[in-house]
Amino acid sequence: MNRPNPARPDIQLMSGYTPGEQPDASRPIIKLNTNENPFPPPKAVLEAIVAAATESLRLYPEPSSRPIREAAARAYNLKPEQIIAGNGSDDILTMILRTFVSSGQIVTAPCPTYSLYETLTKIQGGIFQQTPWPDDLSLPIAALLKTKAQVIFIVRPNAPTGHMVALADISELCRKTSGVVVLDEAYVDFADDNGLALLKEHDNLIITRTMSKSLALAGLRVGLGFTTPALANEMHKVRDSYNINRLAQAGAVAALNNLAAFRPGIAAIRSQRLRLSQELGKKGFTVQESQANFVLATVPNNGLTGEEWLNALREKGFLIRFFGSDPSLQDKIRITIGTKDEMDGFLNAVDELL
Amino acid sequence: MNRPNPARPDIQLMSGYTPGEQPDASRPIIKLNTNENPFPPPKAVLEAIVAAATESLRLYPEPSSRPIREAAARAYNLKPEQIIAGNGSDDILTMILRTFVSSGQIVTAPCPTYSLYETLTKIQGGIFQQTPWPDDLSLPIAALLKTKAQVIFIVRPNAPTGHMVALADISELCRKTSGVVVLDEAYVDFADDNGLALLKEHDNLIITRTMSKSLALAGLRVGLGFTTPALANEMHKVRDSYNINRLAQAGAVAALNNLAAFRPGIAAIRSQRLRLSQELGKKGFTVQESQANFVLATVPNNGLTGEEWLNALREKGFLIRFFGSDPSLQDKIRITIGTKDEMDGFLNAVDELL
Repeated sequence: MNRPNPARPDIQLMSGYTPGEQPDASRPIIKLNTNENPFPPPKAVLEAIVAAATESLRLYPEPSSRPIREAAARAYNLKPEQIIAGNGSDDILTMILRTFVSSGQIVTAPCPTYSLYETLTKIQGGIFQQTPWPDDLSLPIAALLKTKAQVIFIVRPNAPTGHMVALADISELCRKTSGVVVLDEAYVDFADDNGLALLKEHDNLIITRTMSKSLALAGLRVGLGFTTPALANEMHKVRDSYNINRLAQAGAVAALNNLAAFRPGIAAIRSQRLRLSQELGKKGFTVQESQANFVLATVPNNGLTGEEWLNALREKGFLIRFFGSDPSLQDKIRITIGTKDEMDGFLNAVDELL
Repeated sequence: MNRPNPARPDIQLMSGYTPGEQPDASRPIIKLNTNENPFPPPKAVLEAIVAAATESLRLYPEPSSRPIREAAARAYNLKPEQIIAGNGSDDILTMILRTFVSSGQIVTAPCPTYSLYETLTKIQGGIFQQTPWPDDLSLPIAALLKTKAQVIFIVRPNAPTGHMVALADISELCRKTSGVVVLDEAYVDFADDNGLALLKEHDNLIITRTMSKSLALAGLRVGLGFTTPALANEMHKVRDSYNINRLAQAGAVAALNNLAAFRPGIAAIRSQRLRLSQELGKKGFTVQESQANFVLATVPNNGLTGEEWLNALREKGFLIRFFGSDPSLQDKIRITIGTKDEMDGFLNAVDELL
């Protein structure tokens, strides 16, 4: 008893990733904090899940989620061998770190970015080097290359800003780096274009997708990685043997076979995104133009701080996201786009606090 | 294009874990190869899953699977803080490696054992040192300690032999090692006793459980780890933020709240295990006494080889497991215990091949 903590010293020093708050379902609060979709998934998805809730659950699922990979290949015009499925796209990101990054190697991303990249790099024993965004928020190609990173993460649209870098810049980065470029397209279905065509040109590119945002299935935990068959093959080696359960496989296939059903919801979110950005602008916020399902807003400088907005809005029944640990985000709040009614209520609450 | 493979050199050299064959569901074959439960999960579990297949799937699940941890705490008389839930117990094993093993550190287990330990150790950049079982299959305490391993894995009942080491020996190992002892109880519900009481005595012990065997939910992917709150806290840091989806959380809670419903199936499996062992013995096989839901049988030395039995039985509609990569298991086959009818058919097929 009372032996020293046997955990790795770097793990002991870590605090772990802090996911956005998930309030108790019984509490009446509008969740605008974790970029979930305000619209339900289509009935076909729920029906496919119910149809899979049979005694076949006593059997292991298909190990490599081949049904998902085949459905995704059809949906995105790729080959199943180019596709790897994850228990959420976070699982894909974990596989990328474990496949490509040895202890002591460098990982970078233009920052601020999705904070999980740094957490996963530390868990892997790698070194996360922050490359700052330039003032114009263009891709800092030279600075990224200078880190000599083994893996470079780019979110497009970026989190938490929502802005898009030029696809030509990502191509240039792929050509010039000797490492792997990860294009995280978690939010791309809300944007004007995507990077799928780049897969034909580069053999060191991995594109990640998630069903948690545009496909309204955050509770199902399914993400996808698109890359070359060679890189996918290496990633499969570190993948948990049965990483996606039977129910999620069934639901994911149904979602991929019904992508058209998600379009009205995506269109509504894009429309409310524009409206929220304009209305917050009128109220004194500075809103970054976003191509995602959220906006990052700098709060008016003569009122509440970012953290005070978080707490005051929670009191009024709206949960938003404030990134307390990032010094560059202290005057900013991130708001997930909800339904028209939710945005009406949110804007009213903002008015009451101004 | 044509740049060198960017994967870690040790990953390039690996072949990855090979899960047991999952035949196409349309093929009429009796699966006795991956230790699944032949009996369906209780209706309450399926109903709980169906009840969770609602539009709430658009929302993330509870990150730490608190509902599962609370149900497991009640079921096993532990505190939720002692429990960590995984996307299958393989996820728990992965967390253990990532939390406690730094690059170059040693991991060991009495071998042959569950081959995933070696795979996960290599992925983590650790060194897996095989400690052979002695002829009497007792726990080789001195040999395990001599490796100075950071983590020692013990499966009880062991895979693929099905035999049990003495709990007192595990206690002695916990006292004498400066590392972590993992007691993998994947099959313990089929055995006469378990090691839960050891958790009160040792602060370097982690017990792992799975819902894939006795609880007939291999397709749901839920495993549990029981340890001290301190070690669980370190493991949570490397856990995927939302590692268990909403459907699996609902099903797992229902299973834990209905453990009594699984008892008749477990009793039937224990009964068929004894019968299969005795019948195979009469036919010239040497069968290791098993406390799990499978038996390891040495094939008669005047007939087919282990691999030939695998192929001949497949032709007759029975899929069993042969461990081609382990030299010590070339003359052995592992058979999962099925229903009485399945065992009748299997024994008939064996007769036809003798």
